[in-house]
Amino acid sequence: MRIAIDAMGGDHAPDLIVKGALEAAAEWPDTELLLVGDTAAIEPLFGGAKPDNVTIHHADDVIGPDDEPVRAVRRKKGASMVVAGTLVKEGHAEAMLSAGNTGALMATGLLVVGRMEGIERPALAPMMPTMDDKGVLALDLGANMDAKPEHLLQYAIMGSIYRAKVHGMDKPRVGLLNVGTEAMKGNEISKATFELLEKAPIHFIGNVEARDVLNRNCDVLICDGFAGNIMLKAMEGAAGTIFTSLKDAFGQSLLTKVAAAIMLPRLKQLKKKMDYKEHGGAPLLGLNGLVVKCHGSSDVVAVKNAVRQARVALQAKLIDSITAEINGK
Amino acid sequence: MRIAIDAMGGDHAPDLIVKGALEAAAEWPDTELLLVGDTAAIEPLFGGAKPDNVTIHHADDVIGPDDEPVRAVRRKKGASMVVAGTLVKEGHAEAMLSAGNTGALMATGLLVVGRMEGIERPALAPMMPTMDDKGVLALDLGANMDAKPEHLLQYAIMGSIYRAKVHGMDKPRVGLLNVGTEAMKGNEISKATFELLEKAPIHFIGNVEARDVLNRNCDVLICDGFAGNIMLKAMEGAAGTIFTSLKDAFGQSLLTKVAAAIMLPRLKQLKKKMDYKEHGGAPLLGLNGLVVKCHGSSDVVAVKNAVRQARVALQAKLIDSITAEINGK
Repeated sequence: MRIAIDAMGGDHAPDLIVKGALEAAAEWPDTELLLVGDTAAIEPLFGGAKPDNVTIHHADDVIGPDDEPVRAVRRKKGASMVVAGTLVKEGHAEAMLSAGNTGALMATGLLVVGRMEGIERPALAPMMPTMDDKGVLALDLGANMDAKPEHLLQYAIMGSIYRAKVHGMDKPRVGLLNVGTEAMKGNEISKATFELLEKAPIHFIGNVEARDVLNRNCDVLICDGFAGNIMLKAMEGAAGTIFTSLKDAFGQSLLTKVAAAIMLPRLKQLKKKMDYKEHGGAPLLGLNGLVVKCHGSSDVVAVKNAVRQARVALQAKLIDSITAEINGK
Repeated sequence: MRIAIDAMGGDHAPDLIVKGALEAAAEWPDTELLLVGDTAAIEPLFGGAKPDNVTIHHADDVIGPDDEPVRAVRRKKGASMVVAGTLVKEGHAEAMLSAGNTGALMATGLLVVGRMEGIERPALAPMMPTMDDKGVLALDLGANMDAKPEHLLQYAIMGSIYRAKVHGMDKPRVGLLNVGTEAMKGNEISKATFELLEKAPIHFIGNVEARDVLNRNCDVLICDGFAGNIMLKAMEGAAGTIFTSLKDAFGQSLLTKVAAAIMLPRLKQLKKKMDYKEHGGAPLLGLNGLVVKCHGSSDVVAVKNAVRQARVALQAKLIDSITAEINGK
């Protein structure tokens, strides 16, 4: 198994990306890791001991967080992210990971790695946190703002296969994000999508509401990138506001500071539980190869987890399974 | 001023609705309140002393929470909600309030009270809570799932006038709910709406994100009913989950129970602050008369506040102002 890692993307690149890759290399000697980026910046991080299953693939350029995605991918052929995509495209690697610019990674997926035959729109599928820690795979959360019912149907099929293959779920429950749980609720797109999902080769449980996602009302949540993004940010906003207010309330007097001291470990745990950044990399599904978006703030543990996740997906032949289902092969 | 009150709608009808009306009648003797509903159920609640400015307008029937809205409004001509709407339509009252079935009230607005000339789709405009307690008027939150850019433009104009007239705001800031704050973000509808709002006679501040609504990133939030409902329920879900988890955490040991005792008043305050049910009635804007949806759980204070709100809107000639702006009169 060969996995290309964009060593230059993310808030802590190349330092923690490379260190995470080194830990992954030590844990899984059967996996070859191709670190893509500036050799002069990467090599010193090895501390003089390059593992056998790690290779540096030099790339001169970098796509920054503020680069316009499509233009950057088209123009910066030598950027670490684009080179990693090219390695997948040309069969030198089976998967790529990046913690860089999300839009640019989606453009790399589309323009460099390439769409899977039969897929109209790839989807970004991060895990939403749930209180039972099993999470909800939500797609799409940002790749396509205007999804048609046919796209949403494909998301449902891809998401189901992902949870079955990568998370070992038997019959992942697919829910359609909507304004109520009754059948035929919502806007024109959700009504048309509901009808398609009812006939699809998935375990469709009907419409689900945003308010119950944290209690894992489904295993695969289907939505367009617009509604999904608004759901995610509304949750983040509410959680952030409450935690800030709690902090203020705990700081008000000596007595409340005592209460804070007692509660702090539990609050930290709760805050962490609700932080979707903690929940691994997000696959970009519907491409001719495995592309995983790691959060921009990824550290050593996050990179190692993303490698673990990519290994499971590759071992389970995720891409072949999706191709077979979509194209009836 | 005459205000019709659906005495039979809501979880606490007719009891707390009538009691709230009696308090309002005592506070504002210049306002005539028409209590619409079953005389035999309403009259005993007066305790033998009917104020001069309160009249019972008998209605035999009631629309229940599970009635199919449009059908119920069409068939139950004698239902309290429909009769209240008819009183507005026929000029016997200038405004109506109801804590009953939301869908049925929207149908009553459209089919009985009637759309304002020039308005294609009326909008339901509740206040979202904010940490500074000034709130954000959000529209639409549920009347129309598939709003076109032209509808959203009308929402922006109506919402601006409402905040100026009813809340006395000088230049209410209008924001468009979107997935990022940069111009031209989002889906096709939000891009087209952005262009219309830039040219509108409002104080448009651009795109706003769901995560900042609680910090009052705008005064009038424009969204379609689908995205708005998902935002609201995502916030409710996150807040509910956190408060439940906190309750669990506070109950874990004797020590945490001590912390709970210290923090309880502050937590209750925070919870109340975030509960949008606490934030008054929601006007249904774009009709030939003032229609206010009170929350189903409305109590005496909520009813009295809704009467206060209706009085301010009537005194400020809200409906005439909206008509003038929409129709250029």
